[in-house]
Amino acid sequence: MNYGKVTEALVEELRGLLGPKNVICDAERMEAYSHDETSAEEYGHMPDVVVTPTSTDQVTAVVRLANRERIPVTPRGAGSGLSGGAIPSLGGISVSLEKMNKGKGLFYAGYPMSLETCFLGGNIAENAGGGKAVKYGVTSRYVLGLELVTPTGEVVWLGGKLSKDVTGYDLTHLIVGSEGTLGIVTTAIIRLIGLPKAKSDLLVLFRTPAEAIACVPEIIARGTIPVSMEFMDKLSVETSCGYLNESLPYEGCGAMLLIEMDGQDAATVDADAERVGDLCMEKGAIEVYMADNRTTQERVWSVRRNIAEAFKVRCPVQSLEDIVVPTASIPDIIPELDRIAAKYGIAIPCYGHAGDGNLHATLVKDPDMALEVWKKAEPEALEELYAAVTKLGGKISGEHGIGLKRKKYMAEFMSPVEMGLIKAIKMAWDPKGIMNPGKLFDLD
Amino acid sequence: MNYGKVTEALVEELRGLLGPKNVICDAERMEAYSHDETSAEEYGHMPDVVVTPTSTDQVTAVVRLANRERIPVTPRGAGSGLSGGAIPSLGGISVSLEKMNKGKGLFYAGYPMSLETCFLGGNIAENAGGGKAVKYGVTSRYVLGLELVTPTGEVVWLGGKLSKDVTGYDLTHLIVGSEGTLGIVTTAIIRLIGLPKAKSDLLVLFRTPAEAIACVPEIIARGTIPVSMEFMDKLSVETSCGYLNESLPYEGCGAMLLIEMDGQDAATVDADAERVGDLCMEKGAIEVYMADNRTTQERVWSVRRNIAEAFKVRCPVQSLEDIVVPTASIPDIIPELDRIAAKYGIAIPCYGHAGDGNLHATLVKDPDMALEVWKKAEPEALEELYAAVTKLGGKISGEHGIGLKRKKYMAEFMSPVEMGLIKAIKMAWDPKGIMNPGKLFDLD
Repeated sequence: MNYGKVTEALVEELRGLLGPKNVICDAERMEAYSHDETSAEEYGHMPDVVVTPTSTDQVTAVVRLANRERIPVTPRGAGSGLSGGAIPSLGGISVSLEKMNKGKGLFYAGYPMSLETCFLGGNIAENAGGGKAVKYGVTSRYVLGLELVTPTGEVVWLGGKLSKDVTGYDLTHLIVGSEGTLGIVTTAIIRLIGLPKAKSDLLVLFRTPAEAIACVPEIIARGTIPVSMEFMDKLSVETSCGYLNESLPYEGCGAMLLIEMDGQDAATVDADAERVGDLCMEKGAIEVYMADNRTTQERVWSVRRNIAEAFKVRCPVQSLEDIVVPTASIPDIIPELDRIAAKYGIAIPCYGHAGDGNLHATLVKDPDMALEVWKKAEPEALEELYAAVTKLGGKISGEHGIGLKRKKYMAEFMSPVEMGLIKAIKMAWDPKGIMNPGKLFDLD
Repeated sequence: MNYGKVTEALVEELRGLLGPKNVICDAERMEAYSHDETSAEEYGHMPDVVVTPTSTDQVTAVVRLANRERIPVTPRGAGSGLSGGAIPSLGGISVSLEKMNKGKGLFYAGYPMSLETCFLGGNIAENAGGGKAVKYGVTSRYVLGLELVTPTGEVVWLGGKLSKDVTGYDLTHLIVGSEGTLGIVTTAIIRLIGLPKAKSDLLVLFRTPAEAIACVPEIIARGTIPVSMEFMDKLSVETSCGYLNESLPYEGCGAMLLIEMDGQDAATVDADAERVGDLCMEKGAIEVYMADNRTTQERVWSVRRNIAEAFKVRCPVQSLEDIVVPTASIPDIIPELDRIAAKYGIAIPCYGHAGDGNLHATLVKDPDMALEVWKKAEPEALEELYAAVTKLGGKISGEHGIGLKRKKYMAEFMSPVEMGLIKAIKMAWDPKGIMNPGKLFDLD
């Protein structure tokens, strides 16, 4: 695709449309918009101009201008993404929705691990998962409707405040997870649900990751659906505890499960938790700790939520993966990680949403390994990991998205027919290819 | 669109592809494929040929042939649809999936009212709702993956046995509810869930429909989510009871709610049911009956499930509607029904999934009304009903689909921009417009 250039006249036109305060073009301030939470060195790219619209009208005006001049438009939420989806990899206009983020702090069942920073718009773009998906599902289940600025700069309302609706194609959920390539979401109707009155968290210690993971499908098969079943191997727990200056009991343990139960009735929740705890002991757990007060629960979950950040601080040279496999196949993936780690001499600590089959295996460079050795080993190790995932009927991304980071591997996980269908929609809606170009797929 | 003709040579080619047993072209046998559960007189249309493929390969072969010759293709499940989606309204090939229906009888949370006859493929095409959607959601929540024969005759697997998956656009759920206009689903991966160990049904009698309906948002607001909250006005109950030779207590009652609670623990379910029953009495119910054994539960549900059929037998001249409004607005729609019924001198009995805001108001011709009076009154009454629904932020169809029956009203419920986006997808995937043409929208 040949894109137009962001000229001084165009910047001036943007200033006229949005007001000078909402147009940023000095390099120092724009730097923050050049990357997300993937490695800035590898994926970062400066926009030519950043705009911070304050209304749907302003978003529409920007997109129309971009469409007229064929300028790349990259929508951006909080920039907490993990696949490069908000990086303006072809330059052009970074459209930051930061001034349109109006959270109200009610209970949103999505519970992304980045909940302290992320925006709902980004959650929608990536169809974010999170810590409560086993019971509550992911973002898409809660999006009832949305206002979209299309790639040609038209505004459309999709869906509504309706529990069910078959009036036309379900475009609402086509947008969810489309990574900003089909338009910019400016308003969303989200279903909020009642807060559970009681909850209980179990921290279950196992000797080995394989033993911990083997428990997961067993628990699901018994019928009681936990809110979450999070897996953390020892290195993940240690690293996050070190980063937070926190301590959890993990002596003698190679991995743990963090299992949450909730409900309307404390006695039922406690009984459920006890049953799950007993099952874990039966399956070889070393110890089951119950965190039944808010403070302890928050401490344990904070360790889980901060693993990714802790690894980034401790070993900046790494690749955070987002593989997902059928729940029944989770036990089969752990030996593959061990095998690949041993073969390439790299560490692959692993944590994630085991209850969904979604594991954040993280390929990490050993401090003693030469960078050039890593650079050769990492892609080969990734290829082997992906081959193992494919063999199990899994996919490359459960919740982080494809973005820039994973698009070169799409052919391994998607047939040419499916990719053709996806691109056909993209071309039909965005004939000039301006909306978040270079993400998910290349059009040329 | 100009379509090709089904010639004798083409039928012969179909026989060669599928075997003579799977190609039907005598008029008597084809008649069954000329209509669904909408009025045959009004919407019925004969196919030129019916095929009953037994494999995905055979479906693909038929679609390729149809695409080559530009012959309309109308996919068909059990023919239990209520919007004309399976009617070959432009002739051509009716592709009946009857020989590919392999149900296994596990617990499928969709629970459509037509569960005794319908096919899963039809449920997917229409994104069917049903009796358990308040708690369990509709069909789309349970479709994890599917095999699709595209309009150009390619086979593609979408999704998989995965709890979450953001590898590319969510095409799986674009197909769900697309009414067979984007391809033929030949296999589906459906998530089944554990059977609840306990359930309890309440039959709650109210003096008026307005009082019954007013209870619905109150119950939802209290936090306990029932499996279902079905509404039936007196005429609906009487008609179904008469049809089934059944009796329910409805003396002095103008409407009733059928409320189901379920869970893993009988004591909790009973406590929930009691709480909901008490709330109903507080809000003016005449009486609450609890059906806590299987036989009574099945009797009550059978009355609910058979209302549509009973009305068809009793008053064949009618229009079964499928409006859906925000749950909070349900109480506002009942007075509109009363007003419209009085204005046009027609009966509008009403029943449906009140817990979802999805009501099957049914416009029924009085036996004494002249047919030409009805033919003038019915469209005007419908227009007023739809205007009231639109004003409340509602839509024309919650679960039955648009099909043939409702497409002329789409402009009232859908902006030209949204319709443009839908047609853009259709044209991109089905450039010859052969797949279930004439449903949802007209391409010309």
